[in-house]
Amino acid sequence: MTDMGRLSVALVHHPCVNKEGRIVTTSVTTLDVHDFARLCRTYAVADLFIVTPLPAQRRLVERLSAHWLTGFGAACNPSRKEALTGVKVIDSIEAIYDNYRFLGRKEPKLAVTSAQKGDGVTGYDEGRALLAASPETLLLFGTGFGLADEVMERADIRLAPIEGIDGFNHLSVRCAAAIILDRLRGAR
Amino acid sequence: MTDMGRLSVALVHHPCVNKEGRIVTTSVTTLDVHDFARLCRTYAVADLFIVTPLPAQRRLVERLSAHWLTGFGAACNPSRKEALTGVKVIDSIEAIYDNYRFLGRKEPKLAVTSAQKGDGVTGYDEGRALLAASPETLLLFGTGFGLADEVMERADIRLAPIEGIDGFNHLSVRCAAAIILDRLRGAR
Repeated sequence: MTDMGRLSVALVHHPCVNKEGRIVTTSVTTLDVHDFARLCRTYAVADLFIVTPLPAQRRLVERLSAHWLTGFGAACNPSRKEALTGVKVIDSIEAIYDNYRFLGRKEPKLAVTSAQKGDGVTGYDEGRALLAASPETLLLFGTGFGLADEVMERADIRLAPIEGIDGFNHLSVRCAAAIILDRLRGAR
Repeated sequence: MTDMGRLSVALVHHPCVNKEGRIVTTSVTTLDVHDFARLCRTYAVADLFIVTPLPAQRRLVERLSAHWLTGFGAACNPSRKEALTGVKVIDSIEAIYDNYRFLGRKEPKLAVTSAQKGDGVTGYDEGRALLAASPETLLLFGTGFGLADEVMERADIRLAPIEGIDGFNHLSVRCAAAIILDRLRGAR
């Protein structure tokens, strides 16, 4: 781990776009919380932020986490407990930056992912080198039909979409995140 | 795709083992069907078999697929329709072999995955080369606490577990499959 920068991940439910390109708040998929927590722990991600402005959705994630951190699940499955320990539920991307400032951390380099092609996207060999060289990076994954333009435009690094063999481009965010973290941080 | 062998994937719900190592039939997780279908289409997997001996579980998967293949979902999301077209619901691993024989296909090389370490596991560079050289491969993913020994012992190729940075080993089958297919078939 000494040759890696510190990486945090956020799974973003607002601001995202829907099929028509309008800004929406997507619902939390509870399985995403598990899958992302396990994935982030596997690749030594420092913090996993679940971002939603909806208080009821934040309570849902907190209740789910509590079951595995202190409830029956903690004794039943210690690995799940260990994974969910890194989860932080938060109301906005801006609040993540506040969290970095509050803790006296450096402002992170902002990396975003998108299933859309775009000019100037960064490939994974280059992305891997950029993350290794950056002391602090925040990597955002959008839900619904992706992150809103206002977020994409703030990014320092925009990673290329995962395209597979013949251009079919419709992975779940869980599977896309797994592939992306493995390409950026997996054993080589 | 000309430099790749034909690959099929099966998500196996029986025979699997539970936490105590006993043979069980696990429940289908409906989201797995979507995630695996999208993932398999991305990496040009020929067939995705969902294996369960329970008729009610097979009907569940067929009903779910029908919504996206011919129901409202087909018009709403053509990419999802395209992904789910490759899904075959089947009652046993043996029935997959019957399917190959019925269609006059070569007997596939059998590849298995496991989160457990074991002697003689195959790394991903070697696995990639083996799959490229094999005209027909069937890759099995177990659920619950993994595939039963009787299945593991039949395998021609046993792929190494995905271990990440420091040995934490508790990915979801969805995320593990995404990483494995990308390592075996992803763009290099």
